[in-house]
Amino acid sequence: MHEPLRVAVIGCGYWGPNLIRNFSTAPGLEVAYACDLDAKRLEDVARKFRVARVTSQLTEVLADPTVHAVAIATPLPTHRHLAEAVLRAGKHLWVEKPLVATVKEAEELAALARERNLRLLVDHTFLYTPAVRKIRELFASGEMGEVMYFDSVRVNLGLFHASDNVLWDLAPHDLSIAQHVLGKLPREVSAFGVRHVEGAPENLAHVSLRYEGNLVAHFHFSWLAPVKVRRMMIGGSRRMVIYDDLEQMEKVKVFDRGVDIRRVQSDVEQRHKALVSYRSGDIWSPHLDGTEALSLAVQDFAASIREGREPLSSAQVGLDVVRVLAAAQSSLEQDGRWCPVSSLRGSTDRAHLPAPSPRMRPSDVRPLPVAP
Amino acid sequence: MHEPLRVAVIGCGYWGPNLIRNFSTAPGLEVAYACDLDAKRLEDVARKFRVARVTSQLTEVLADPTVHAVAIATPLPTHRHLAEAVLRAGKHLWVEKPLVATVKEAEELAALARERNLRLLVDHTFLYTPAVRKIRELFASGEMGEVMYFDSVRVNLGLFHASDNVLWDLAPHDLSIAQHVLGKLPREVSAFGVRHVEGAPENLAHVSLRYEGNLVAHFHFSWLAPVKVRRMMIGGSRRMVIYDDLEQMEKVKVFDRGVDIRRVQSDVEQRHKALVSYRSGDIWSPHLDGTEALSLAVQDFAASIREGREPLSSAQVGLDVVRVLAAAQSSLEQDGRWCPVSSLRGSTDRAHLPAPSPRMRPSDVRPLPVAP
Amino acid sequence: MHEPLRVAVIGCGYWGPNLIRNFSTAPGLEVAYACDLDAKRLEDVARKFRVARVTSQLTEVLADPTVHAVAIATPLPTHRHLAEAVLRAGKHLWVEKPLVATVKEAEELAALARERNLRLLVDHTFLYTPAVRKIRELFASGEMGEVMYFDSVRVNLGLFHASDNVLWDLAPHDLSIAQHVLGKLPREVSAFGVRHVEGAPENLAHVSLRYEGNLVAHFHFSWLAPVKVRRMMIGGSRRMVIYDDLEQMEKVKVFDRGVDIRRVQSDVEQRHKALVSYRSGDIWSPHLDGTEALSLAVQDFAASIREGREPLSSAQVGLDVVRVLAAAQSSLEQDGRWCPVSSLRGSTDRAHLPAPSPRMRPSDVRPLPVAP
Amino acid sequence: MHEPLRVAVIGCGYWGPNLIRNFSTAPGLEVAYACDLDAKRLEDVARKFRVARVTSQLTEVLADPTVHAVAIATPLPTHRHLAEAVLRAGKHLWVEKPLVATVKEAEELAALARERNLRLLVDHTFLYTPAVRKIRELFASGEMGEVMYFDSVRVNLGLFHASDNVLWDLAPHDLSIAQHVLGKLPREVSAFGVRHVEGAPENLAHVSLRYEGNLVAHFHFSWLAPVKVRRMMIGGSRRMVIYDDLEQMEKVKVFDRGVDIRRVQSDVEQRHKALVSYRSGDIWSPHLDGTEALSLAVQDFAASIREGREPLSSAQVGLDVVRVLAAAQSSLEQDGRWCPVSSLRGSTDRAHLPAPSPRMRPSDVRPLPVAP
Repeated sequence: MHEPLRVAVIGCGYWGPNLIRNFSTAPGLEVAYACDLDAKRLEDVARKFRVARVTSQLTEVLADPTVHAVAIATPLPTHRHLAEAVLRAGKHLWVEKPLVATVKEAEELAALARERNLRLLVDHTFLYTPAVRKIRELFASGEMGEVMYFDSVRVNLGLFHASDNVLWDLAPHDLSIAQHVLGKLPREVSAFGVRHVEGAPENLAHVSLRYEGNLVAHFHFSWLAPVKVRRMMIGGSRRMVIYDDLEQMEKVKVFDRGVDIRRVQSDVEQRHKALVSYRSGDIWSPHLDGTEALSLAVQDFAASIREGREPLSSAQVGLDVVRVLAAAQSSLEQDGRWCPVSSLRGSTDRAHLPAPSPRMRPSDVRPLPVAP
Repeated sequence: MHEPLRVAVIGCGYWGPNLIRNFSTAPGLEVAYACDLDAKRLEDVARKFRVARVTSQLTEVLADPTVHAVAIATPLPTHRHLAEAVLRAGKHLWVEKPLVATVKEAEELAALARERNLRLLVDHTFLYTPAVRKIRELFASGEMGEVMYFDSVRVNLGLFHASDNVLWDLAPHDLSIAQHVLGKLPREVSAFGVRHVEGAPENLAHVSLRYEGNLVAHFHFSWLAPVKVRRMMIGGSRRMVIYDDLEQMEKVKVFDRGVDIRRVQSDVEQRHKALVSYRSGDIWSPHLDGTEALSLAVQDFAASIREGREPLSSAQVGLDVVRVLAAAQSSLEQDGRWCPVSSLRGSTDRAHLPAPSPRMRPSDVRPLPVAP
Repeated sequence: MHEPLRVAVIGCGYWGPNLIRNFSTAPGLEVAYACDLDAKRLEDVARKFRVARVTSQLTEVLADPTVHAVAIATPLPTHRHLAEAVLRAGKHLWVEKPLVATVKEAEELAALARERNLRLLVDHTFLYTPAVRKIRELFASGEMGEVMYFDSVRVNLGLFHASDNVLWDLAPHDLSIAQHVLGKLPREVSAFGVRHVEGAPENLAHVSLRYEGNLVAHFHFSWLAPVKVRRMMIGGSRRMVIYDDLEQMEKVKVFDRGVDIRRVQSDVEQRHKALVSYRSGDIWSPHLDGTEALSLAVQDFAASIREGREPLSSAQVGLDVVRVLAAAQSSLEQDGRWCPVSSLRGSTDRAHLPAPSPRMRPSDVRPLPVAP
Repeated sequence: MHEPLRVAVIGCGYWGPNLIRNFSTAPGLEVAYACDLDAKRLEDVARKFRVARVTSQLTEVLADPTVHAVAIATPLPTHRHLAEAVLRAGKHLWVEKPLVATVKEAEELAALARERNLRLLVDHTFLYTPAVRKIRELFASGEMGEVMYFDSVRVNLGLFHASDNVLWDLAPHDLSIAQHVLGKLPREVSAFGVRHVEGAPENLAHVSLRYEGNLVAHFHFSWLAPVKVRRMMIGGSRRMVIYDDLEQMEKVKVFDRGVDIRRVQSDVEQRHKALVSYRSGDIWSPHLDGTEALSLAVQDFAASIREGREPLSSAQVGLDVVRVLAAAQSSLEQDGRWCPVSSLRGSTDRAHLPAPSPRMRPSDVRPLPVAP
């Protein structure tokens, strides 16, 4: 049995308390400090959770040699400065998404963590959900065929942010999922956004991604929709998936459907005949276990520290998300012009991805109800 | 009582029989001819419907002075030639959508009909559906506030077409609805499409429209989706609408929701406070009558001929749809560059729209369940 | 190739025209007569369909030696008299459901058809739907385990009938499906109904059935529901099925769920532990072919005549439905007292069921996505 | 400002911790004791919540003069004994539902509370949900017309209980809602249940209620359904309601639908004509506030103690639920025979119902979107 891993949480606003709850109840971890400038929040946290000590002094936290890791749950603009301080203090780092606001900063932090041999987990929680893990399995297994498109709608009647636009608020979720499932980064990005409220940031955006081959992705983000939608449609050449995160019972549905394009080798007339012959087969909704994603992320973070390996949602994942976000932002500012995604060095090509931690080894891929 | 209106139907393939069924059963109309080059189809039609005569000779039809009107239900490439012949023969014209493939051709046909004082109805059937008529009423009445966005998804696992791409196949529906509800044309269009099957046309496309002010529209079209979706989301500054054409009972839902942006005049801090205060009110699904849209269109066509007025789905409507389609097509070919919509002369600004025919006068706009 | 089978249709009200449409378009059949007392209806039918002759004289129809079969689509009270006349005239018989209003009459007609060696099909159309055929396959194959319960809800805002109550209007559908899927008749029936409109028949009813063992069924019927529901839930000891007839894409869903009761042999404490361990597995929605049930029924009727065999929806099926209906009616009149189902002679125990006609041979049962 | 109300919670199993969480965070309340025989549970509770003291000694709790009220969250069989002890100790009482297992015990406890002038709240939490409060308003306002039927389905794949059958486990919810909305008790009850697991209690039950006039109610309960359903359909003569507790956004829908039976005065023919003329109008889903029902119940309990008035979910409510439960149980044991509900003395006729506490005064009834 190890000594407990002592974690400090910086920022006790909206998300911080969730981290504290999970860190304080996970086996083998304890919350050494909760840190915030707002005394009221600290009091609240102290009352509700098992926290060794609360403080408004970051220096106190960083100076404490018994603290192994620090989690940052503060607004984006503060991430870069706090993250560097944490790493320079020799602590492992957990950062809320998105990692930082620029590719340069992201690369610097990733490099710094590497040099110091410290773990850096960017909290792209969705990577730890049973649904996303199952979808990744399905595509990794090859039984879905070649992926043709990835389409996501993430809209609701949402809070307008003071600083971020809807892109930086919502896109990190979908981009991290897309990279994880597709196992690659896009070549270029086109984004189009609107500000419906004078002086406020973009509240509606459409983002298109182009990859090698004819794989495309599209994302629809909005803070002004009458209903909440969290829906992804991923088309493979053999089968297709719909992931509806608001569905209670059937979050993931696999459709044994597609067009039969194997007979498309001959001349035009026959090709088009061939094309109309599409398959409509069974629908299968795999059972997903109910583990809370955030607690899996916490366990992966702890294990990555103990085992000296990268966590699933690594610095590289966070960096790649920022790469695409930054390209989308500059396209947004250039009226939708296609913008290249910066240097693919260290892309998340599946080959380079860390294997999931033992705790999260994907269950064996079930055969679909239909024979190949 | 009038003498019956004698209509000839050219093209007995997929859609023609629907026209024949409706023309042959509508009060005061009769089908004088069904015309097709395929003898088998003619035989089929003759067996199933009340048709005075079937023929493969268009000339015979056009030469018959007892024929008042001709309906064209043939492939798009043939529209221009056939339509001109019909008009030059002095017959009123019904054309399947889209009217033709270029703005120039559309303007020529519209002009020709005007000169000859003949009616020209382009069969944008959706304009006659109870759902679209209700949505138009809601926005025209002002109770939805200023429209901010129009979003439509029209995807399914569909037939690949030999010639048209997914844009020309599906967009005419959504574009005609958007113009009818919004009462205006976009300034510019950006379209992005993909061909997933070598040698086949684009099977997936995203189209964005920009209008005066900050009104935007987006359309998602696909022949490769695992499920059929026919869903529009229209955001007004006071209320929002969702129109799901696959819903049996609640096709149109009005959401008394939005953000309160009246308090946004002062300084940054207060603005953003104001913005987060969004309203979430009742949801109302108006009862829609069950009349079949196509039969309403047929009645409107007959009435427009008798009354010497434009039908609701006029040449102008068809022309405006082609304007936007053509702009979208050229954007598609220029990698999504924003393309202007040709000359707004004769835009469908609501002021210029013909009033709906008496048969279709919108019922009085019901008050929403909530007071302003 | 046979000479065409000549069918006469008696009754051209609500359902008759559907029969005429199907008989007149099915290969190898033709409609010799449409018969009704209402001249307007006959004219309508003559205009819309291929009908050799229309008449108001039943005698003329029965006297015509070229007529092979007669279909009765008239109100229930007239069935017994008309059916007997048809059989005595030596014609094969198709009767709308329910067959007749009493067990005695049903047995007499079944016997008469047997004596004269004539086919008698009772139009329980649901037996021919892809959904019901699939569900029957699933339970027949044994992979659902032992059936524990059958629950059906068939409610809507419906027409009140002048004579029949909601039981005789709606129950024939569900009872025929239950018998077909379960392969047996109940031992006893309890029914409870209400008249919400003075002088009108029962508009809401609940019917419970008890079978050998602890299999039970329950049916909820109503003409006064705000929405239409057509939903069945069938629980097997290994898997369960939900059949929602209003679902477009997933009418039939198979749930790999249940409680694990194999460990229930030992003492109380362990038993209850065992019981709480229920399984929650995958959900599977088999693809169903789109053939129209009524046209399959027509084909089966024709084939049964040609092949001299019983149709799937035989006199026995119709008789068994009347048995249960009659028991339900008498329970309704006795305040819900359990009433026995008359003599099980000739129950539809699967062993005795005619095999489906070749045209309808069930596709091979697909393995579920989960291993046993 | 009052001194805080000090509450002790007995039983820290499944539900107890929810009570502790709510009592410990509600303004003006504090948890004086958490009491359980299981040390592990006490430790857990002590770690997670603000609890002054944990103990396994009930006597210690009852002897403490600073304790104002006690909440019982233990298994049903222990309620009667514990509740009496609490009341005799002069503490106000909160009991989990159902109150007790027999009418006699329920009446004794209600009487004892009255004598000692102590408050007794039975935790029928649903009475405090925004949905149920809204539905009660709608029917109380008269705008739904006369209620004709109440239909509820509460099924899922649930835990089998060691002792209670599905009736005592699930019915208290629906019965309390029915009484609250209908404002009256049934005259008689018929219940029918099945045990699908040898030696286990009934896991499936159907319960029918008959009231004065032709109002009927039906409840379907099951622990063996493949899916979770929580759906009520309540038919008024003017409008109908569907309450789906699993719906996120539209839990309550009001349907402006029904049959027009005002023209039913004349002779049979006209009556039936009149009956078929049913109305199908708009659908309205009122916005519901998001307050947690349990916290409202806690506030009502505290207020009832301070103000010396009955809580909304009073001893009488709990007693009336037990009345119907007991009648249902005896019908279950007599094969569905109609069993009378014991003495209507103290029925929950709306006239006798306590007004909702100020905190919960229903918002003014909104007009429906349709004119009367």
